[in-house]
This record gives sequence, C-alpha cells and structure tokens, in this order.
Amino acid sequence: MRTQVAVIGAGPAGLLLSFLLHEAGIDCVVLEARDREYVRQRVRAGVCEQPTVELLTSLGLGERLAAEGMPHEGLSLRFDRADHRIELTELTGKTITVYGQQEIVKDLIDAHEARGYPISFEVSDVSLSDVDTDRPRVGYRDAEGVARTVECDAVAGCDGFHGICRPSITDSALTVYEREYPFAWLGVLARTPPSHHELIYTYHERGFALHSMRTPEITRLYLQVDPAESLAAWSDDRIWAELTARLEVEGDFTLREGPILDKGITPMRSFVVEPLRHGRLFLAGDAAHIVPPTGAKGMNLAIADVRVLARALEALLRGDESLAQSYSDTCLRRVWRAEHFSWFMTTMLHTDPHADGFARQLQLSQLRYTTSSRAAATSLAENYVGLPFV
Amino acid sequence: MRTQVAVIGAGPAGLLLSFLLHEAGIDCVVLEARDREYVRQRVRAGVCEQPTVELLTSLGLGERLAAEGMPHEGLSLRFDRADHRIELTELTGKTITVYGQQEIVKDLIDAHEARGYPISFEVSDVSLSDVDTDRPRVGYRDAEGVARTVECDAVAGCDGFHGICRPSITDSALTVYEREYPFAWLGVLARTPPSHHELIYTYHERGFALHSMRTPEITRLYLQVDPAESLAAWSDDRIWAELTARLEVEGDFTLREGPILDKGITPMRSFVVEPLRHGRLFLAGDAAHIVPPTGAKGMNLAIADVRVLARALEALLRGDESLAQSYSDTCLRRVWRAEHFSWFMTTMLHTDPHADGFARQLQLSQLRYTTSSRAAATSLAENYVGLPFV
Repeated sequence: MRTQVAVIGAGPAGLLLSFLLHEAGIDCVVLEARDREYVRQRVRAGVCEQPTVELLTSLGLGERLAAEGMPHEGLSLRFDRADHRIELTELTGKTITVYGQQEIVKDLIDAHEARGYPISFEVSDVSLSDVDTDRPRVGYRDAEGVARTVECDAVAGCDGFHGICRPSITDSALTVYEREYPFAWLGVLARTPPSHHELIYTYHERGFALHSMRTPEITRLYLQVDPAESLAAWSDDRIWAELTARLEVEGDFTLREGPILDKGITPMRSFVVEPLRHGRLFLAGDAAHIVPPTGAKGMNLAIADVRVLARALEALLRGDESLAQSYSDTCLRRVWRAEHFSWFMTTMLHTDPHADGFARQLQLSQLRYTTSSRAAATSLAENYVGLPFV
Repeated sequence: MRTQVAVIGAGPAGLLLSFLLHEAGIDCVVLEARDREYVRQRVRAGVCEQPTVELLTSLGLGERLAAEGMPHEGLSLRFDRADHRIELTELTGKTITVYGQQEIVKDLIDAHEARGYPISFEVSDVSLSDVDTDRPRVGYRDAEGVARTVECDAVAGCDGFHGICRPSITDSALTVYEREYPFAWLGVLARTPPSHHELIYTYHERGFALHSMRTPEITRLYLQVDPAESLAAWSDDRIWAELTARLEVEGDFTLREGPILDKGITPMRSFVVEPLRHGRLFLAGDAAHIVPPTGAKGMNLAIADVRVLARALEALLRGDESLAQSYSDTCLRRVWRAEHFSWFMTTMLHTDPHADGFARQLQLSQLRYTTSSRAAATSLAENYVGLPFV
C-alpha cells in the first residue's frame, strides 16, 4: 500500500493530525493497535485549553463540544481549609472547557467515518523501517492477521508513551529528560453530580486531592497515593472517607458520593525526548513527552504538536523542508513551558514524603502568594487556560 | 543599670529599632561586640526596597540616601547570551535604590550620636537571663572590661545569625527550618565605574554571576563558586577572566576592570526560626532568619521586622501585650514570602552541580517565561521592589 503519511496511533494526536492532513488533501492512514470501542471509551484527560477549543471549533469539530462541554471561568486552590479562587477569565479573558478526551476522540472518529478517512483498528506487529530515507515503510498485521506494508513519505509517531515509534529511533539520536515523582494519582469516576461547579485542587497534609467532573452527572475525583499502593487496598468506602478528609473546609462543603464506575492508579512522570524528528519520523504528543496531569496539559500539548506537524508535513510534501526542520524546536518551546508549569503545579500541590520542613513552608508561602498576588494568579491562569499557539 | 529595652547588636536592625524606640520616648541601649569603625565599614547588602527607602525617609534618615543612593527602574536577567530586562518601575510603579548597608548604618550611628542615643561598642561576654519574666537582665563587659548588668522590660535580639540571643533560647522552644545550597558567592569590590547602569543577574553554564555597584565609582561583582573553594585559589586575574566569561553576551558588553579593594566568599543559606519571640526576648533580622543574597532581601527583611517590633514594644510598655503576641506571626508572613522569593531567584539563576538534565531544562524554561510573560515578570518585580509593609 502507498500513502503519503502513515499515522501511528488513534488517540487525539493521531486522529487530529489525520483529519488536518486529509482536509489539506493529503492521503494518509491511521494504524491503531486497540479496537474501535476501546479507543472511544478510554478515560483520559478532561480539560481543554481555550486554544484547543478554538482549533477544534474552527475545523468544524466543535458542535458537540459546544453543546456538552462545560466552560469554566475559574478554579479553586484549596488549602488552609479554605478555597482561594483563581479567576481564570477575569485575569486572562479566556476560559477552559471540561470535555473528556474520549469525547474528542469520538468526534474525530465520527468525522473520519463520515468523510471516509481510513482508520485501521486492531493492527499488530507494527514496525518502522527506512525512516532515515524519503521512503519510509511501515509493516504491520491487520485486524485479520494479514501482514501488510505501507510505503509513505513520512511517519507520524502518535502512539503514546508506550508506543513503538520512539523506541524505533536509535538511542544515540535522542536525548531523554525525565523525572519520576514520589506519588501517584488514584482516580475515580463516580455517578454523582459534581459537588462544586468548578475544579478544586486541594493541598492537604494528608496529600493532594482533586475534585473535577466529566459531565453534569459524572464526577471525577483524584487522590494522591504512594506509587507502590495497590488498588485492592482502596475500597470505595476508604476512597470516599479519604476524599472527604482532604476536601474538608471551614464552613460547608459536602462531597456528593455515588457509585464508583471506574478506578485506577496512575504514576506521575515528567518526560521529554529531543528532538521530535528523526529523518521522516515525527513524534507528537505522549510519544515524545509526558507531563504529570496536575496542569491538565497532556492532551492540549498533543493537539498543539499536531497543529504544527500538519503544516510541516504539508510543506514537506510540497518539497519545502523548512517547517519539518523547525518542527522539533517549535514544539519544544511549548513543551518545556508546559513541563515547567506541570512541575510547578505538581510540586506546589502534593505532599512530598522526602520534603523537609523548609520545603513545606516554601510550598505554603507559594500557595498563599499565588492566590493573593494578582500577578502570580495571572501567571498560573495564563498557563492553565493555554498560552497562544505559535 | 536600668533601661526599658536592651537592644543586642548595632546592625541595621538594632540601630533602626533603637532609633524608633527613642523617637517614641522609650529608653533603650544598644550593645555591640565590634568597634565603631568596624561596624561603619562592614560591607554587606546594597539594595534597598522602596518600602525601606520610604520608611527611612519618613524618619528623617533619608537625606544622604536621597543624595547618594542610586534609584534603579529595572534590572537584567542575562541568559542565552542576551539581556532580558525586568521593567521594575513600569510593572510596579516602584523603584529600588542602590545604597550600601554600611551607609545606612553610618546614617543611623550619626543620628544616634547627634541625638545622644547611647550605643555601647566593644562589649563582650553578653548573656541574657530571666527573659521569661517581665524583668529580663543582660550581663556584659563594657569596652574597658568592666562587668555590667542591664535590667529591662524587653530584650531585642538583633545580633545576627552568629549572635548569642537565639542560642540563649532553649532549643525545645524553637522550630528551625534550614536549607544549605551547593554553592557560595565570591564577592569582590572593585574601584571602577559600573560596566552597566543596572544590576545584571547572569545565568551561565559556568555558574551564576552578578554585576552590581555601590557608588558611581565602585563596582560590586559576584561569582558562584563551590562552597569549599579557597579564596587563595582566586587571583585577581582569574576573577576578572571568570567574570568576563560568564557575563559575555552576543553584541558588545565590556566588563570594566579595576583594582580589587575587597574579596570574600560567602556561603548561601536559607534559615528561619519560629517563633520570633520567647517571653520578653524578641528576635529580629538575621538573628531569626537568613536568606541567600540573590533576592536582595536580607537587610530589607530586618528593617521590616523592627518596624513591627517597635510598635509591639511601644504597646507592650503601655501594658498592651497584643502586638507583642502577634509579632512573630506578623513578621513570619513577610519572612516566608522573602524566603520563597530568595529561593526562587537562587535556584533559577545558579547552576546546581546535582541537577539532572530535566532540572536544567526547567530552569531555562522558567527564565524564558519569567522574562517574556508580563504576569511572570510582574511577579518577580513586585517581590524585588518590596511588597508593602503590613
């Protein structure tokens, strides 16, 4: 098979890239290891930056997002048993929109299917070759197990942190930057209306907690736990008790409980590989960088990457290599801004078992300053709502 | 001897406190271990926050400060071989004033002498007793070696980090927060006009460097060095070569060299003790807290402390304990803000020998963001020029 761009991975990055390329008249295929339903249901991030919403809307992909997404004009940092609201919209003129990543994935799959843009689900044994030539090849087995090969002009590695694209680049060509955190998130999805209309990021001596939501009926909650913690140790009762203890305030806050639909433990990691390009292989999204989820930046970064990548590939296929050459540097500026912001939010809001008293006092001073200085609050807000796309 | 307040230490904190108390009609004495000339010449900090300047001016102590101090409306962060100016005044409406700490000390000593307020220099064997009663006593030997005792209502511990006041409090009554940094500052005072009219804080792969000044004829320069470094290893030639290498920019910057008048190595430490009060003993300035010098906060914090302390002691001597009881908490809010800011400036601008690649990239991202976002630059600026006194 011959195509112009082989896109590996049908997450938000791969699907949006494929959509952008098809709309620009470029032939491409998406190869995805999982089945269609798994991909459509996979629970991931839930906060869209304003630039993400604007991009999806400008592409005609924003209809359901506009109808079902929940725009927020602020968020709370909860510490010292009180809420300190960051006035996102008042400070920046922008909003964030709560809309699950899987909803964006569904919208993108539906748009592909409506237009006849191909996605191959359930492929296996994907391998890349000749990416350092201008005729890279992708080998794989299709859903029926039949061995196939795609010959293309470029490969987009959108297959996430555990995908095959990044490891297919020789180690010596990549520089890896990495940080592991001494905590993880226990996330639960519960069938109950949110207890508050906005997100609440809580710093508590017992550990971080986050009150979030997916829809007006579905609450999303997170607890900081030890990365070695077993899910088996967390009964629903224990989860609710711990959430209640951490989300406590002076005054009246009642956490609404409900049936837990899903729970899981996610480690927290920062990771960046440089450069994002090796020959005709371009990495985008989680395949190239991971942020801890505290800043809500993962999906938004992936979308920012592929917006740059789509233009770079369009130019490359016209014979203009300049944007392909600058692709990595262009993306890395935003990536490192988001890495720094995510680290900032993470270290400010979690309890670090290795922190000494000095570090804990600095953390409190930073929380108090961030929520009392207009400049500092604006700094948090402008990062959270999303700095403009380049 | 009987007095109302015994002030231990004739640095900026002790002298300003004594001045404020005398002006309020309170009897007090200052005891200082060093001789008068040493105290007047001791080279220390050189940057006054706007609230410091306003306070000194309002007390009639600002005449020479106004004539000789150098107001600055900005400072530069130099990295990536270029200057990035923080527009202090444009962002905050305030300025900083370069005026050596020893000049403030001279002004305060002169004001004491003109008004007949007593300062005892060259005292030794200072010891405190009965500070947990309302009749504390201070024993010491005067300059002639004669043993004396002062009986008073309160003792102000303004005798710096290495003074005797803090250690005279039982350990179990204090909580200590501390951080040592893996670097020190080699500071030089050179007889040469500054090479630039403002301060330049430089982040360079070879280490931090700071271009500052004391007067239009005297330049103050600092180099990050290993804390174990010996001054003997730093010839004048080596110092100038290293400064030149670190302060290099794309374009034209020439470092003006001149005779080195003074050089020394200072370790970098963060330190806070809580509470700042034990019975009738009140700690202020470096006796209670140390910041690394990168944020130019040490002397300014000392002055903020004694402004609060003077009011608390006035009330206490009228029989109102409330301000004395809140003294520690009131000061600690500003102290922790300054501790956080000083840590922020220090970690952003120095090379940490233990930092991994991820930490170095975060540092660069933070530098680039701080100098490109108006909100982030304002946050730095408002801390640097000095948040309002409470």
